[in-house]
Amino acid sequence: MTDTGVTRSPTDLLAELTLEEKAALLDGSDFWHTEPVERLGIPALMVTDGPHGLRKQAQDADHLGLANSVPATCFPPAAGLASSWDVDLLRRVGEALGRETRAEGVSVLLGPGVNMKRSPLCGRNFEYFSEDPVLAGDLAAALVQGVQSQGVGTSLKHFAANNQETQRMTVSADVDERTLREIYLTAFERVVRTAQPWTVMCSYNRINGVYASEDPWLLTRVLREEWGFEGLVVSDWGAVNVREDGVRAGMDLEMPSSSGAGTQRIVEAVAMGTLSTGDLDRAVLRVLELVEKSRPALADPGTVDVEAHHALAREAAVRSAVLLRNEDRILPLAPTGGTIAVVGEFARTPRYQGAGSSQVNPTRLDDALTALRAQFDGSREVTFAPGYVPETDASDTTGEAARALAAEATEHAAAADVVVLFLGLPASYESEGYDREHTNLPPEQLDLLEAVVAANPRTVVVLANGSVVNLEPWQHRVPAVLEGWLGGQAGGGAVADLLSGVANPSGRLAETIPVHFRDNPAVGNFPGEHGHVRYGEGLLIGYRWYDAHSLPVAAAFGHGLSYTTFGYSDLRVEPRTAGGVDVHVTVTNTGDVAGSEVVQVYVADLDATVFRPDAELKGFARLTLEPGQAREVSIALDERAFSFWHSATGRWVVEGGEFGIRVGASSRDVRLATTVTLPGDDASVPLQVDSELDVWLAHPGAGPVVRERLEDTQWAGMVFDPQHGAMMRAIPLVRLTRFPGFPIAESELPGLIPA
Amino acid sequence: MTDTGVTRSPTDLLAELTLEEKAALLDGSDFWHTEPVERLGIPALMVTDGPHGLRKQAQDADHLGLANSVPATCFPPAAGLASSWDVDLLRRVGEALGRETRAEGVSVLLGPGVNMKRSPLCGRNFEYFSEDPVLAGDLAAALVQGVQSQGVGTSLKHFAANNQETQRMTVSADVDERTLREIYLTAFERVVRTAQPWTVMCSYNRINGVYASEDPWLLTRVLREEWGFEGLVVSDWGAVNVREDGVRAGMDLEMPSSSGAGTQRIVEAVAMGTLSTGDLDRAVLRVLELVEKSRPALADPGTVDVEAHHALAREAAVRSAVLLRNEDRILPLAPTGGTIAVVGEFARTPRYQGAGSSQVNPTRLDDALTALRAQFDGSREVTFAPGYVPETDASDTTGEAARALAAEATEHAAAADVVVLFLGLPASYESEGYDREHTNLPPEQLDLLEAVVAANPRTVVVLANGSVVNLEPWQHRVPAVLEGWLGGQAGGGAVADLLSGVANPSGRLAETIPVHFRDNPAVGNFPGEHGHVRYGEGLLIGYRWYDAHSLPVAAAFGHGLSYTTFGYSDLRVEPRTAGGVDVHVTVTNTGDVAGSEVVQVYVADLDATVFRPDAELKGFARLTLEPGQAREVSIALDERAFSFWHSATGRWVVEGGEFGIRVGASSRDVRLATTVTLPGDDASVPLQVDSELDVWLAHPGAGPVVRERLEDTQWAGMVFDPQHGAMMRAIPLVRLTRFPGFPIAESELPGLIPA
Repeated sequence: MTDTGVTRSPTDLLAELTLEEKAALLDGSDFWHTEPVERLGIPALMVTDGPHGLRKQAQDADHLGLANSVPATCFPPAAGLASSWDVDLLRRVGEALGRETRAEGVSVLLGPGVNMKRSPLCGRNFEYFSEDPVLAGDLAAALVQGVQSQGVGTSLKHFAANNQETQRMTVSADVDERTLREIYLTAFERVVRTAQPWTVMCSYNRINGVYASEDPWLLTRVLREEWGFEGLVVSDWGAVNVREDGVRAGMDLEMPSSSGAGTQRIVEAVAMGTLSTGDLDRAVLRVLELVEKSRPALADPGTVDVEAHHALAREAAVRSAVLLRNEDRILPLAPTGGTIAVVGEFARTPRYQGAGSSQVNPTRLDDALTALRAQFDGSREVTFAPGYVPETDASDTTGEAARALAAEATEHAAAADVVVLFLGLPASYESEGYDREHTNLPPEQLDLLEAVVAANPRTVVVLANGSVVNLEPWQHRVPAVLEGWLGGQAGGGAVADLLSGVANPSGRLAETIPVHFRDNPAVGNFPGEHGHVRYGEGLLIGYRWYDAHSLPVAAAFGHGLSYTTFGYSDLRVEPRTAGGVDVHVTVTNTGDVAGSEVVQVYVADLDATVFRPDAELKGFARLTLEPGQAREVSIALDERAFSFWHSATGRWVVEGGEFGIRVGASSRDVRLATTVTLPGDDASVPLQVDSELDVWLAHPGAGPVVRERLEDTQWAGMVFDPQHGAMMRAIPLVRLTRFPGFPIAESELPGLIPA
Repeated sequence: MTDTGVTRSPTDLLAELTLEEKAALLDGSDFWHTEPVERLGIPALMVTDGPHGLRKQAQDADHLGLANSVPATCFPPAAGLASSWDVDLLRRVGEALGRETRAEGVSVLLGPGVNMKRSPLCGRNFEYFSEDPVLAGDLAAALVQGVQSQGVGTSLKHFAANNQETQRMTVSADVDERTLREIYLTAFERVVRTAQPWTVMCSYNRINGVYASEDPWLLTRVLREEWGFEGLVVSDWGAVNVREDGVRAGMDLEMPSSSGAGTQRIVEAVAMGTLSTGDLDRAVLRVLELVEKSRPALADPGTVDVEAHHALAREAAVRSAVLLRNEDRILPLAPTGGTIAVVGEFARTPRYQGAGSSQVNPTRLDDALTALRAQFDGSREVTFAPGYVPETDASDTTGEAARALAAEATEHAAAADVVVLFLGLPASYESEGYDREHTNLPPEQLDLLEAVVAANPRTVVVLANGSVVNLEPWQHRVPAVLEGWLGGQAGGGAVADLLSGVANPSGRLAETIPVHFRDNPAVGNFPGEHGHVRYGEGLLIGYRWYDAHSLPVAAAFGHGLSYTTFGYSDLRVEPRTAGGVDVHVTVTNTGDVAGSEVVQVYVADLDATVFRPDAELKGFARLTLEPGQAREVSIALDERAFSFWHSATGRWVVEGGEFGIRVGASSRDVRLATTVTLPGDDASVPLQVDSELDVWLAHPGAGPVVRERLEDTQWAGMVFDPQHGAMMRAIPLVRLTRFPGFPIAESELPGLIPA
């Protein structure tokens, strides 16, 4: 790659760089490339958008232009992939993404995004995995491992607490540390610890007032010192605030090019002594190490089997779809029989990915209508009526054209044996850059649904949407609902496979669908105002919230039907020598077709002295069984699965006591449960002068001394009074010492604390 | 009061004090007295506990002893008084309290407490008024005016955000400023602005990490500079942390005596220059001014008509009780007829006040059983069975004695025409000093209820409790429920008046009773842990929460039945010249007995651009009408009734647009509604370099310039692109300037902002 043919080590290269060259290396050279240093053979690296497919700018790289990129396989976005609960699938999709990345000479694919789905309204939810950090983390880790197995890097994003698009460039996510640790950082942590992404992308927003791009606690203490991250931190595009503060905090590479502004600030800051050479060199070395890691792939780009990747995209879409409802086994559609009326423009013109920086130019695009016709070729008639124009403005729904479309569709429906009605969100409803205003389907689609169901109650609804839609007004009026999410370029074929029974639905919801939008935990707390958003629900994101408030839901986290059924038996829990437990359970396919089940393990801390969610997902396993087949699965839960973030001591703590182990098919479909008692960690907080009297009295060393000092004084009566003693004992001892006549002086307290 | 017979002004006295004397004046001399300065004729003032009655230590004043005080009238605690929604009553109760305070030579009565009822679990809710700050503020202001009309002072407490007993001495209430301003400070503000309490008592807790006792923002900027408070701030007993920091912040008087510790710290701090003489003198002057104000009453204590005060206590208890339910008009009990079976120990041994520092030694104590027998003397037989022992431990409920009590009660019930079943919380269930763990009645009482209702479905339940209890499991199984709260010393007679129809129920709930405890907004956010409690529900306290989440409730805020009915008509809204509107509505007694209605006005901001609760109480009026009588009431809503706290500019702002005016008999029983359009304030935030591009473009001065600079560049296409333009325009302009090829440089931005 260099003229000399000799590649020097990053450390050697660092020693030869001038200050200006170092500073320049921490800045992009245009929108998508890092800065090269020709004289030292340091190439410019290219990075591109795309968690679910490569978005490599086709031309004019000095540009953000979103619509014009080289063709690449469009896999289902994360909202779909996550619904597979399939670690192996995510790894294989990652491998395919890695091959495409490498083949295009790109060194880093800017993804995946593992932010939590805090509100259903977040415009970018389609790019994120789940409301649960364990699920998001484990799936994203597999994707990262897959991509990086091909010699190219990933960028884990958007780090951190970027859970909305509204004011995303400036808003402060005001969130307590325990909530951050247990919910909003956990997925990042799992990916970093298990998959070491080459890069992490910091988010635009602030966290408790500090920009993520210049937060040393986040980027250095937590990410590197605690989790052991070894790669480079890159800014989200435009996330840099004060450049030198970012370098000092651990934000290494600014993207895109700042046209020299960032370079100049760094040079000046070093000259003025406000940025140390050590901090500068640390960041530069990380860029050089990234270059070093990228060299082999750049030298040998390899090739891509476009057809094989399309087939994988179809498999991924099949596994991503969730069968929410299937009354009277109306699905799968029989191979022969009467007319199938396909209704809905989305059957012909798929909505298959979201808008924004992740938008891929697909290598092919399957539509469900063509695929269904191919599936039932000759055996059943398949008619089609578009029914609606997806981007119709609501005010047009009473227009003549809209009425004619609906009338045509209703006629088709009335004449058919069964209707497959494709509904979903128009592209403008969900996008990077802004949040949704509601969770409803467009009104013209709901009107169409009414008319179609009235004409033919045997109506199966297939949904295309990247974030949850309100099911409650209509789901009980149709026998079946298949949530196809955004299925990627092969989603149309996948839907045909599922409806026809060529494939058996196996997706499970990675997020709760509430009954009413107003049930959701972020109501009143999203998207904030005047630069601040309060994470007021704390730990109670998603199902944790609905469980804590005993709220009914339209569809539970983890829910998803199959064309077969599964039985659970023989739950056993065994301690592991490394800490934690192994959960063993036997699953049996009790139906008559092969199918896949997702076994979910939820843990409840039954003896907690701090607030804990009722139960939390801590492990899962997906397995495929032939009819009648049984298999034992084992799911390991490490100590972390039982712990909480202990704010007073700043560490993860397992409280000794009883834990519930609940195994089931969703968060609200627990099939087997047992308990396990764990010893736990010592979480005692050292005795302090302002510890409450109760804490002093309970202390093995100091307690007897304090008790003796109180005896035979008028305070003994008050402190141990049956009615008011509890109130007195809740007072910090140091405060009591100020009270008139208290028998212990403030100055004595330090001496009463045992060493 | 002085040997010379001449009283010098506080300013003159200040000039004569030594540093040591000044410091001593800022400390108590014992538990209940301030420090005198004999040589200057400055007397020690006495202060005593007691928002609903005087708790003057009978002996041994160097002591906190709670059980031994001189007799005083025990009025209903605030939970009851607040349910009257009766400003005039509160003023008269205040006058009575003031007379008793004065007669005992006490200068300041330590109350009222206007903290919001954030969680039903707060152990001290019985001492607080409401979940609504307008209701709490207006009622407490009347009480303060009443007390102070007698020449003695009050202490408005616990300032501020002291909404729980758990860790109350140290916990930090982590709460955003808008929530503080709109919910947790508003009641204090209303009292200060309208009634000027002589003193304000700071709370024990911290607010966002800062002790209330040393928070200059709270005690000086907000309390004095914004609200115009002119009195003295006293510490809650033991709330002082760093004494000199408190003086500097505006916390004037430490109580109780610190036995010299505080005095010494102040003297040292002044000597070391860490506390200025100005700050010291300011605090001392406030003590001297309090002494000055106290002199007339001390010189002329007056007398108390104990019987008249008892009668007032009975009237207060009548007006405090809330008739929650009355099917088939089972109440009032007919004057003649079959046997009335009174069941429940609380009928004989009243639970009439809460435990802790507010506990009064009553001048008399009425029980409901005696009062009922007097009421129906000769006309109906009244039998009695205790049914349970209030403080029985739950484990005893299956004991032989408990079974015998229940069996006896059931026999009485079966033999009677109607049963009046007294249930409630034992004293140990709610107290200052600790919070409740649940909201249920004791299990033995619930068992008794089952048995009694089975024996006789004509069972009227009378409740005695200081904070809400769970009604849902049983309320629909009995025809009537009368919530008597803690009725004070005359509560027993009041219940008899109400049951017999001598008085007509007129109380209205000052707090929502949820269906399930788990519905409440503080679940997961109360009482916090490790020194912090997150006010995560923000503005959504009480009914604001249940409305925002469309949750059913067991009994709505503002609900309460009468033995008559009321009609609403002729709603008119008229602008006031001083700003705001006057709401006029005519109320008609449509039933056949005289009765009192509480007209409630809720305001909804229909055009809000920030999050606002669905509707909020902003005014109310209580009126009494004869059968058939109609009267127009007018309720003034000032500008504040329409405003919100605008965080970005730090002030109250009315957003121009449409507001809903909803008039009704509870938060969920709106009888008449209209809208009013108000012009509103200018709430625009000045244009800044990091304002979003959309904000720049919308700016009348800068917008056209920026637009012109973008035209004819590649950026125009991106920024105004129909699909992705919104995303681009949400980026702060200063960030865009760093992007490659952006046509405006960062250095140009300040020049683009119009002066």
